[in-house]
Amino acid sequence: MNPMLEIFSQGEEIVTGHTVDTNAAWLSQQAVREGFTVSRHTAVGDKLADLVALLQEIAQRADCCLCTGGLGPTQDDLTAEAVALAFGMPLQLDPKALAQIEAFFALRGRPMPDSNRKQALLPKGSLRINNKRGTAPGFALQHQRCWFVFLPGVPTEMRPMFAHKVLPQLHQRFSLQPSALISIKTFGLGESAIQQRMDTLALPAEVQLGFRADLHEVQTKLLFPYGYPEAAMTDLVAQVVGLLGDTVFAVDSPTRQSGGMTDVVSQLMTQGQHTLNLIETASQGLLASLCGGADWLLEARYGQSLAKLAKKQGQTEAEGDSVRLAQQLAKATPTHSPATWVLVQGFDGDHPQFQDPSQAITVHTLLLADGRFHQSTHTVAGSHKRKQSQAALLSLDVLRRVLQFGCYSNPSDETGHTKLRRYGLRLLDKNPQRATA
Amino acid sequence: MNPMLEIFSQGEEIVTGHTVDTNAAWLSQQAVREGFTVSRHTAVGDKLADLVALLQEIAQRADCCLCTGGLGPTQDDLTAEAVALAFGMPLQLDPKALAQIEAFFALRGRPMPDSNRKQALLPKGSLRINNKRGTAPGFALQHQRCWFVFLPGVPTEMRPMFAHKVLPQLHQRFSLQPSALISIKTFGLGESAIQQRMDTLALPAEVQLGFRADLHEVQTKLLFPYGYPEAAMTDLVAQVVGLLGDTVFAVDSPTRQSGGMTDVVSQLMTQGQHTLNLIETASQGLLASLCGGADWLLEARYGQSLAKLAKKQGQTEAEGDSVRLAQQLAKATPTHSPATWVLVQGFDGDHPQFQDPSQAITVHTLLLADGRFHQSTHTVAGSHKRKQSQAALLSLDVLRRVLQFGCYSNPSDETGHTKLRRYGLRLLDKNPQRATA
Repeated sequence: MNPMLEIFSQGEEIVTGHTVDTNAAWLSQQAVREGFTVSRHTAVGDKLADLVALLQEIAQRADCCLCTGGLGPTQDDLTAEAVALAFGMPLQLDPKALAQIEAFFALRGRPMPDSNRKQALLPKGSLRINNKRGTAPGFALQHQRCWFVFLPGVPTEMRPMFAHKVLPQLHQRFSLQPSALISIKTFGLGESAIQQRMDTLALPAEVQLGFRADLHEVQTKLLFPYGYPEAAMTDLVAQVVGLLGDTVFAVDSPTRQSGGMTDVVSQLMTQGQHTLNLIETASQGLLASLCGGADWLLEARYGQSLAKLAKKQGQTEAEGDSVRLAQQLAKATPTHSPATWVLVQGFDGDHPQFQDPSQAITVHTLLLADGRFHQSTHTVAGSHKRKQSQAALLSLDVLRRVLQFGCYSNPSDETGHTKLRRYGLRLLDKNPQRATA
Repeated sequence: MNPMLEIFSQGEEIVTGHTVDTNAAWLSQQAVREGFTVSRHTAVGDKLADLVALLQEIAQRADCCLCTGGLGPTQDDLTAEAVALAFGMPLQLDPKALAQIEAFFALRGRPMPDSNRKQALLPKGSLRINNKRGTAPGFALQHQRCWFVFLPGVPTEMRPMFAHKVLPQLHQRFSLQPSALISIKTFGLGESAIQQRMDTLALPAEVQLGFRADLHEVQTKLLFPYGYPEAAMTDLVAQVVGLLGDTVFAVDSPTRQSGGMTDVVSQLMTQGQHTLNLIETASQGLLASLCGGADWLLEARYGQSLAKLAKKQGQTEAEGDSVRLAQQLAKATPTHSPATWVLVQGFDGDHPQFQDPSQAITVHTLLLADGRFHQSTHTVAGSHKRKQSQAALLSLDVLRRVLQFGCYSNPSDETGHTKLRRYGLRLLDKNPQRATA
């Protein structure tokens, strides 16, 4: 029997709906993966009596409870106070916590406001969980049946605390039988198109299939129960990768997390010792922003259209369609070395078309890599933000495919197993590195 | 006293974290706006006993409960069965519901699968809520203290059902007194610094104070009860705006939403008929990306450092500190008209410092506007992504302050009331427009 776990969120911003509780979903995913059964999520606001009652209920009902929020410096951050009341563990100043909070402000050259002192008050007998990215330390404690873990609600603080501090503690306290989650990450196929392809596959009953889609990628998730034979697992994953073809850009396992498409591209650019000059239009700075200060991105330029950029560069004779213009701009872009690639993105359509959710634009990407042109053309519809984001990802995908396969269009009849080796899937690892963010 | 409302979600995909529960947040926002107090969110999976126990708890605790999920045709959709057991209301076939489900399939030229018949079984004595977009009708019923509303979990079905069918029912059953939420949006002061300033204010007991902080802004929220006198409301908001000074970039009310800082800047740039050329370094394309294709952003350029950009532009004599370099680059940037402003962002620090979360960098922003320089300098710490994002927002804030006040540094002894007029606060509106989706 897996231990029973509950998720508890504190915050008026959650119960009033101002903030969507993404922490609950993230923590649940981690907990299920590690071998817990998640039975319930609860969120309450800043009423002390509600908090106290809920903590007491959970202490009798669950083996473990992961709690977020309510550890901030302000009056409506009540979690520690509620714990003190509910479990009879009075708050006391933790000098190490206080020193960490003071150091946080010192690094930023600001005096610590008095109100932050409150964050160093922890329930007597609890275990402090250090927070390297913010001022709220977490803490953990056992009460009745339940091991409670309290973490701040800011995801960028909560997630690394969970991965580095909480997970090892949970493995010490519980005898967990983690299932193995394999995520096959694709770009370029919709969820229902993937579902249709997956329908052709005879999936064993004990393997759970799930999907997760956002603007950046679709993840096809296979959850294998504890102890599932590794060879059978690899075979099944290879079959799925074969079905999804070159839209697969990464395969994640419990021991290997590749990040998003940007991370995959970044790693391959660095490995191949390529550098890039970028000219973007439709993605409006987002493409450069996604590559976020990678060493290999030498320079990026945004302009409202390729025609305006070409004119500015003195190419008054620049004419013709977006693709010709892109070629001219790519050739005219000065590069520091032959290893520097140039990516130029143009689009057909004007500003009103871009803003109008009911109209589509056509996005062209031209990559000049080692003297050879690679080109993609796609129609993009939806809101302005969606067009911007899709344009960035479509251009990035050209870079990704050229890096992974040497060419943009589908080049090979590689088997799923060959592809799998390319993605470097490792299903087993004696010293598993866990996801950190 | 507002009636107490709870949100309840059923679904294994919610508790396992495969799906983020956006329904809970959406319904809570609607409920708060209409005059309910939302006290709790709960999500449970497909264990019948859990569901039954939870429904019985809520029936004693809340005046109203909005429930989503578990109305589908499959075995793990258990909500109606749980209601039948929990409240002693046996399921019976609703002929109209069955006719609607059959019509749904007929319209699509598909035979109705047998499993969908189950969706027409409603608890005896409940009120059917028609679903025009899917096969799961909703239903509502009173048990003990609580009016329960059950809706499908698919947002595109649930939202219109709530807006068109459920809301009118709620207004008939409850005497609702919508409160007024005022959000004062700031950039540049942390949550605890704001709290300290707010502590100097004598806030009437019936006005609720709350905060919401993310990377982009801090919102100081004042929730005024129904019928609070408008003059007193304006006075109080003006006092808060006075306390928070020029860090306030917008004030939102139920009848006016200004969006984020980017939206405010965009509106002011357009109003003032300014255009912009942008050179960014530390924000790595993010600043251009945030301004996302605004008409007034003519061109943007990202480079790894100002020194590299200056060298490339042939300014071999470019020397000195980041600020001097920024000035030289700003002056050398060709502009199309005198109305074109130039914003240059540089930073002190190298690539390893940028990547290292334990090291800080210094970000300089220089805005050349109508022949005059405006400058800001800030220390930025944290992860690489955080530095990137803070750099973008700090530079945007220079633009915002120059647009709102004519100058970067705090220029005026404007009273809160004068500022409030500047933000165009409208507290009352005879015909409030409600959000419907």
